[in-house]
Amino acid sequence: MTDIGFIGLGIMGRPMAEHLIAAGHRLHASRHHKPVAPELIEKGVAVHATPKAVAAASEVVILMLPDTPDVEAVLFGADGVADGLKAGAVVVDMSSISPMATKDFARRIEERGASYLDAPVSGGEVGAKAASLTIMVGGPEAAFDRVKGLFALMGKNITLVGGNGDGQTTKVANQIIVALTIAAVGEALLFASKAGADPAKVRQALMGGFASSRILEVHGERMIKRTFDPGFRIALHQKDLNLALQSGRALGVALPNTATAQELFNACVAHGGAGWDHSAMVRALELLAGHAVAETPR
Amino acid sequence: MTDIGFIGLGIMGRPMAEHLIAAGHRLHASRHHKPVAPELIEKGVAVHATPKAVAAASEVVILMLPDTPDVEAVLFGADGVADGLKAGAVVVDMSSISPMATKDFARRIEERGASYLDAPVSGGEVGAKAASLTIMVGGPEAAFDRVKGLFALMGKNITLVGGNGDGQTTKVANQIIVALTIAAVGEALLFASKAGADPAKVRQALMGGFASSRILEVHGERMIKRTFDPGFRIALHQKDLNLALQSGRALGVALPNTATAQELFNACVAHGGAGWDHSAMVRALELLAGHAVAETPR
Repeated sequence: MTDIGFIGLGIMGRPMAEHLIAAGHRLHASRHHKPVAPELIEKGVAVHATPKAVAAASEVVILMLPDTPDVEAVLFGADGVADGLKAGAVVVDMSSISPMATKDFARRIEERGASYLDAPVSGGEVGAKAASLTIMVGGPEAAFDRVKGLFALMGKNITLVGGNGDGQTTKVANQIIVALTIAAVGEALLFASKAGADPAKVRQALMGGFASSRILEVHGERMIKRTFDPGFRIALHQKDLNLALQSGRALGVALPNTATAQELFNACVAHGGAGWDHSAMVRALELLAGHAVAETPR
Repeated sequence: MTDIGFIGLGIMGRPMAEHLIAAGHRLHASRHHKPVAPELIEKGVAVHATPKAVAAASEVVILMLPDTPDVEAVLFGADGVADGLKAGAVVVDMSSISPMATKDFARRIEERGASYLDAPVSGGEVGAKAASLTIMVGGPEAAFDRVKGLFALMGKNITLVGGNGDGQTTKVANQIIVALTIAAVGEALLFASKAGADPAKVRQALMGGFASSRILEVHGERMIKRTFDPGFRIALHQKDLNLALQSGRALGVALPNTATAQELFNACVAHGGAGWDHSAMVRALELLAGHAVAETPR
């Protein structure tokens, strides 16, 4: 039984926390941002007034927050985690945030005698509920060894990629590949449809060859069947590509296709698509072509 | 035993033709472009002076040529296939050429009382030798039924996608997806490496998730191990993306990521890379970043 602080009990964080509770761990939450859900209190979650108080009660502090500034505020703001950390505690940031800021956060946490792991996930709400998240970890191996039993309660494909920041870097790399493969499948199926071919048959013919990918399988089908309910919302993928492009600028890496994919997401949002599934990136291409993948071949 | 004309006995065509000979078919070749290899003549290939003479001796005429103008010249030039075709013959173009021109060629062949199939392949020289090509077919079902036994001697994944042109359209779609997935993996691994992560570990962490693809598996490894011997040459993929962009312009489909991928291939060629494997597209990104995927993380 470990005392675990869990800050960020939202759509992702709450089912993740429930797996930890179900395994017998004692969870500590903060009501500084909003009240803790009564169902969690009934399950024994201890409620504290601030992240500092959560940290003071915990051996491991997990964060699952929307973006870089949220993590910075919870860690280093007034009454933040850093002010309450026990010596030897482990901070585990499972949010998807800037790899560059992460290295700075890790350094500042280690200065206070604690360890830091960046451990962003992929797999979305479905993966969080099913405890099947992919978890990409950066940080010291000793800290990883101490919490990997907790990771195993929340995910399946768990990799220690390297030092601090490398987990977030891997997540950004994942989001680059996913967005650009959606663009690839979108351009190809739209081209095929406009040329008069049946996109469903084209997709079928391409599966199993060098064009095959999870995205062709899952998102290609969404483009053909027009099932654009999320899934993974465009607004979230925009945030991730923003991390890629900002970090790329800071590092000196040009990412031309990532930049174009972001512009296509921006065009979707301009047409009311912030809440569409990210496979709906194809709709921006369809606007340019005046033709949809699913239209009857000419 | 079928009399089969085979025009284009090059790197791809020759091993394909040899599979047909091995199965007992009688092959007819033309020496109008260059002499037929003595080894093929020893195996019983009949040599004719012109494509017209080849067509006059054949029930099925297969073409495996570099580009659209080559196919047009062999079919409709002086002493071309169209002038010699038997009534009821089937012309099978296995080259990778323009989908739009293909529809025109098919119409003109059908006017002469023969059938036309476009049947481009993927799988390269390795697939041609192993008789494991993917074959994407467009044209009338009756013609497909007549020659599918021949396709089965040359390939494995054989799909009748739709009417004439749809085979070529599918091949173009395949090449769009492959090029853009190479760009995706290239941008992601270069970003990861420049951010200080080990690209080999990042690739490993991403396999099995939503970023997974044959390209991440095969070409991602090439980028890390720097094995840029073809494989599939950039000059050939440039030809295919040129078909995509030309057809896109004619059809009214904007393909922004395909256009960028072509520019990255162009940059490789400017640096002597026409003969590099297409996974070396990452080298153009590396030039922009002043950093290579395989460099030691900082």
